[in-house]
Amino acid sequence: MIRIAIDAMGGDFGPEPIIEGVIAALDERSQDFKPILVGDKEELLSHIPEYYLNQVEFIESSDVILMSDSATNALKRKESSIYKAVELVRDKKADAVLSAGHSGATMAVATLRIGRLKNVSKPALATLMPNINEGKTLVLDVGAVVECKPQNLYEFGVMGKTYAQQILNIKFPKVGLLANGAEESKGNELTKASFKLLKDIDGFIGNIEGRDIFNGNVDVVVCDGFTGNILLKASEGVVSTIFDMMKKNIKKSIPAKFGALLMKKRVFKNLKKELDYAEYGGAPLLGVNGCAIVSHGSSNAKAIKNAIYQAISFSKSNVNKTIEENILNHK
Amino acid sequence: MIRIAIDAMGGDFGPEPIIEGVIAALDERSQDFKPILVGDKEELLSHIPEYYLNQVEFIESSDVILMSDSATNALKRKESSIYKAVELVRDKKADAVLSAGHSGATMAVATLRIGRLKNVSKPALATLMPNINEGKTLVLDVGAVVECKPQNLYEFGVMGKTYAQQILNIKFPKVGLLANGAEESKGNELTKASFKLLKDIDGFIGNIEGRDIFNGNVDVVVCDGFTGNILLKASEGVVSTIFDMMKKNIKKSIPAKFGALLMKKRVFKNLKKELDYAEYGGAPLLGVNGCAIVSHGSSNAKAIKNAIYQAISFSKSNVNKTIEENILNHK
Repeated sequence: MIRIAIDAMGGDFGPEPIIEGVIAALDERSQDFKPILVGDKEELLSHIPEYYLNQVEFIESSDVILMSDSATNALKRKESSIYKAVELVRDKKADAVLSAGHSGATMAVATLRIGRLKNVSKPALATLMPNINEGKTLVLDVGAVVECKPQNLYEFGVMGKTYAQQILNIKFPKVGLLANGAEESKGNELTKASFKLLKDIDGFIGNIEGRDIFNGNVDVVVCDGFTGNILLKASEGVVSTIFDMMKKNIKKSIPAKFGALLMKKRVFKNLKKELDYAEYGGAPLLGVNGCAIVSHGSSNAKAIKNAIYQAISFSKSNVNKTIEENILNHK
Repeated sequence: MIRIAIDAMGGDFGPEPIIEGVIAALDERSQDFKPILVGDKEELLSHIPEYYLNQVEFIESSDVILMSDSATNALKRKESSIYKAVELVRDKKADAVLSAGHSGATMAVATLRIGRLKNVSKPALATLMPNINEGKTLVLDVGAVVECKPQNLYEFGVMGKTYAQQILNIKFPKVGLLANGAEESKGNELTKASFKLLKDIDGFIGNIEGRDIFNGNVDVVVCDGFTGNILLKASEGVVSTIFDMMKKNIKKSIPAKFGALLMKKRVFKNLKKELDYAEYGGAPLLGVNGCAIVSHGSSNAKAIKNAIYQAISFSKSNVNKTIEENILNHK
């Protein structure tokens, strides 16, 4: 049984969607995992029906790191729910930690308290983005390492490939390096130097462009955390802008309203599903010596449930061991 | 009358959409400009109705730089349509140059043959992206300068602001620096150093995130050419993926097909218009001592027409003089 420490206080909407997600996961897969909820026990209890109480453990914590807080002193706030949840993994009292709270704090505390895998210089945050083939493209790093060295990008390639094979069940993942053009001559100093190291990875297909993330040409996209973070937020921005524009135009016309009604269940619902990050769970912080899943701050119950399933698969897999075995040191 | 040198051979679809765009512009604004078509005269003549012949000039060129060619030897290909079109600006025989051909070649030849404005270290390619307020956000650089210094980003800010004021008619443009978070503490080494210089610009609002490009929070977005190029192509990729997903889902259901029909004119047409780069013309290469417009390779006639109008506005404006006056040297 996989023990999952859950920061029950983090997230934009407080404990409610998190507890709801935990309960949904327990309803479906209570034999697979044990949730350890970290937070204000009294408050948490008010959200949990009695029926589930014996399936859940609690760890009391008196502090919450807010989204508006800086991540820099997260390591000093030892009473915070995220710190205490991470400590459970460090102390081998949990196999995985999951937080929808302050992502910078989660990454900092997880990296420094759980520690890194052997041979990994820096952990990377890996996120799934939708592609046209109804598949998903794994992009890393999307915000953990803002200033990267070539060895970092190479390691991201190995970690992403391993995750794609073992968790996403892609047998021969295509690994691409994000650049400003597909030719080998394209790229900045960092990507040009990284290109040479990434060649050591079977399945490396060279430089790819921004559009390739979505057209299914590649399974794993490697980039520095500055670029990846901008890319992720811009893509989310484009999606929500298109839907907002569509709504605005629909509102102006009665036939369009009727048309939208006809398309609602058959088109928009599927589209939402294909584009909705809640379907994907959270973003694993690859390279830490354990399993840490960083969920979107605005995660709903479904996103939390899927993140729990992701933590279960990850913890049962051989991802971390394979990463340690496959990373070459180019330094 | 503004004289516009047009590379009539560049572009993914050959001379046809380019000539069509020129003719459409002549139909509406023949008193404002004179097109100088550079290319294989015989071929070009086959696309132009006799009626327009006296409104057009021709410059013969025997070479075309293909999209698959490298940009590195573009300066040696002096018989190419793009080289000859640029030379017309250099020799003051044209006020502006417009090409939908190889963008790397266009930027290289324009920068080196026309030369830079006083005080500008490097020219930047500026593109318009749609935002939810039915406005447009100017993003620069999207591919001219892959490896940037802080002074470059500062200059991009001044150039973008000036263009927004004089060409986009935004009185007090908000200028933002693209980063992995809105707080001043966020960013990589380059953006942190650039932040300090950009503070000299009235209207600088600090760091902005990827999503802000589309939500109307900012008018001018400054970034290095590597990041900007990835961002631009990823955003285009998201848009086309959403439409492809929508089409796929519509095809599966007869009521949805009917719904889509009802929405076609009233919603999708407007949406396409709001998102279509053809509406925006091309991307000006800001910082060259003249006017150079780089159009999308797949430009249709409307995109070419709008790029011509853009070249007219630019050439009539004071953009270049204002840029020269406003750039401070921080080196």
